[in-house]
Amino acid sequence: MDRKKVLSIYKKQGARVETRARVKLRGKKDFTLWYTPSVGIAATHLAKHPKDARIMSIKKNSVAVVSDGSAVLGLGNIGPYGALPVMEGKALIFKEMANIDAWPLVLHTQDSDEIVRVVKAIAPNFGGINLEDISAPRCFDIEKRLQDIGIPVMHDDQHGTAVVVLAGLMNAAKMVKKELKKLKVVIGGAGAAGTAIAKLLRSAGVAHITVLDRGGIIHVGRMDLVAHKEELASFTGLHHSRGGLTEAIRGTDVFIGVSGKGLFTARHIKSMAPRAIVFALANPIPEIMPKEAKKAGAAVVATGRSDFPNQLNNALVYPGIFRGALDKGITKITEDTKLRAARALAALVKKPTAGKIIPDLLDRRVVKAIANAVK
Amino acid sequence: MDRKKVLSIYKKQGARVETRARVKLRGKKDFTLWYTPSVGIAATHLAKHPKDARIMSIKKNSVAVVSDGSAVLGLGNIGPYGALPVMEGKALIFKEMANIDAWPLVLHTQDSDEIVRVVKAIAPNFGGINLEDISAPRCFDIEKRLQDIGIPVMHDDQHGTAVVVLAGLMNAAKMVKKELKKLKVVIGGAGAAGTAIAKLLRSAGVAHITVLDRGGIIHVGRMDLVAHKEELASFTGLHHSRGGLTEAIRGTDVFIGVSGKGLFTARHIKSMAPRAIVFALANPIPEIMPKEAKKAGAAVVATGRSDFPNQLNNALVYPGIFRGALDKGITKITEDTKLRAARALAALVKKPTAGKIIPDLLDRRVVKAIANAVK
Repeated sequence: MDRKKVLSIYKKQGARVETRARVKLRGKKDFTLWYTPSVGIAATHLAKHPKDARIMSIKKNSVAVVSDGSAVLGLGNIGPYGALPVMEGKALIFKEMANIDAWPLVLHTQDSDEIVRVVKAIAPNFGGINLEDISAPRCFDIEKRLQDIGIPVMHDDQHGTAVVVLAGLMNAAKMVKKELKKLKVVIGGAGAAGTAIAKLLRSAGVAHITVLDRGGIIHVGRMDLVAHKEELASFTGLHHSRGGLTEAIRGTDVFIGVSGKGLFTARHIKSMAPRAIVFALANPIPEIMPKEAKKAGAAVVATGRSDFPNQLNNALVYPGIFRGALDKGITKITEDTKLRAARALAALVKKPTAGKIIPDLLDRRVVKAIANAVK
Repeated sequence: MDRKKVLSIYKKQGARVETRARVKLRGKKDFTLWYTPSVGIAATHLAKHPKDARIMSIKKNSVAVVSDGSAVLGLGNIGPYGALPVMEGKALIFKEMANIDAWPLVLHTQDSDEIVRVVKAIAPNFGGINLEDISAPRCFDIEKRLQDIGIPVMHDDQHGTAVVVLAGLMNAAKMVKKELKKLKVVIGGAGAAGTAIAKLLRSAGVAHITVLDRGGIIHVGRMDLVAHKEELASFTGLHHSRGGLTEAIRGTDVFIGVSGKGLFTARHIKSMAPRAIVFALANPIPEIMPKEAKKAGAAVVATGRSDFPNQLNNALVYPGIFRGALDKGITKITEDTKLRAARALAALVKKPTAGKIIPDLLDRRVVKAIANAVK
């Protein structure tokens, strides 16, 4: 659909999410019960027993979708107003897919300290915080500093993506008859997604992982690494001490592109091991088009796009993870939570094929399966 | 209803407000339009034209109900969790009375600087900010510092109360056949409500106003006044230089109690001018019971309670003010806005009587009348 048409539709629509009363205010009795004076009893109770807010208030089923607009979709740093329609879209998906009451909270600041302070300040109203579209490496620090605020805080661009990629990889490995743990994996991109994918693959037992950034292969010998890349270097790139994509990719089983800056070509696929797996996740333009990747010999290809088979979209993950966390009163999304979520998601595809390694975005079983897996 | 019963009902109910999708996500087409890739077009547009967020996003119809829990109802400083059910109740009233999508945002901080920072940070998501239950004198400073953030910010405990009191006073004056501007008014309490009432009465042309705090009559000669009381002393207490309630009340026409600390008695009413007007607004226990006030000679009595006639409740005001502000894209609630709102509210009672000086809380004409009056 063209730009003008979309804008005209959005302008006509206004908000895509609204509030709704879950109780009636028909007469004085209703006011007395749901407002003063009865609400004073609830207020006094919650002042003394704040944990009961999870039972008897909006906190029970609500998630804030928080972004500073610093890394929105593939559009980059477009600020809070640019981020607003995207976060509102996420709130819409939360409601429609997982019946979660999510509210967009784009922030008029990109200062990490201030973002941490704001999220801590607004936390009492929510049962969870979904961080979105915050640029690396700030996203790592911000998320880490918010892990002990009593409600789950998850940066979706990291972990939602990592879970859906791991789930896809589990089924792709099954399909090409290779053992997951023995896969040799190359990740192109060391931002939020690439870093989280590498970590989750390690947790899943994958030993051979190589991550590339603009400087080439990340390894302990490099002197230019920021903190999160130093951490990556401690468990990736162990089989290399220099080189770029050409050197890294030779003989490997899996390429996962998450940078969009890819110079990944058919030539690289041809140098990979037989029955190669290619996840070209850059949006909207994949590192390589599925048709071309297949022609070069890839056995399975996935992208982030809805118009190709195997869409690895984090919208498959975050609704279910938060549904499970809210239902079970979980305060942290751990590595184990993510592994369980990935396994549950993968298991929904009984017999993976080249054209179907991951459930469809509209598959209504997904949220339930992931929520049940969350512990 | 007793405490246990209310708590059990609230616990069974959970949230009283939820979100609802205003568009459908039935198939891939819906995802494409309301999420990626089309949402990217809206994002790019709003990054360049942030003002259009009022047209094409949740900002169009949303208000944040912000409190730090420092002065909740008559319960005092009970913190954010204590405040949460009250703010959720306000969000419910916003939706049911004015079809405004309000979200409770109780804050886990009582530091004024931090509250200002948080509200500025979250402002892009909302078309208005309703400050609630923030203690005096902090509320004055916080509200003042938030007047230029591009959306209307109103501290309801001040201005909602002031508007409903002025409206009630207009009709009470009519009923007792006294001219509003010539009324001699005594206000018991110099907190958020008392201060705002004094200012709005001045704006309405009332010249003779006396305000009392715990130290007695506020006047320029007192050395113990904090900033907002010094401002009060510049236009109130002009007819006194010392004394307490007994001295202040003698021969006056109106008593407005908003402190709850009142030592206001029948004896005071007997010393007032004939056809006295008594607004005993302390909640839940009025400064004097209506029956007693009437017996002592008051011609009109109003309280904040729903179980007596003439309930002067700010819930009559804030839904309409924000409805009008959102509809007309107003960025500041001025003194003029409040005067217009008070006149519109008063005008809904055609022939004021001792038992009816203000519309009922459930009167569906109220929001529309006030919204229309907002300019």
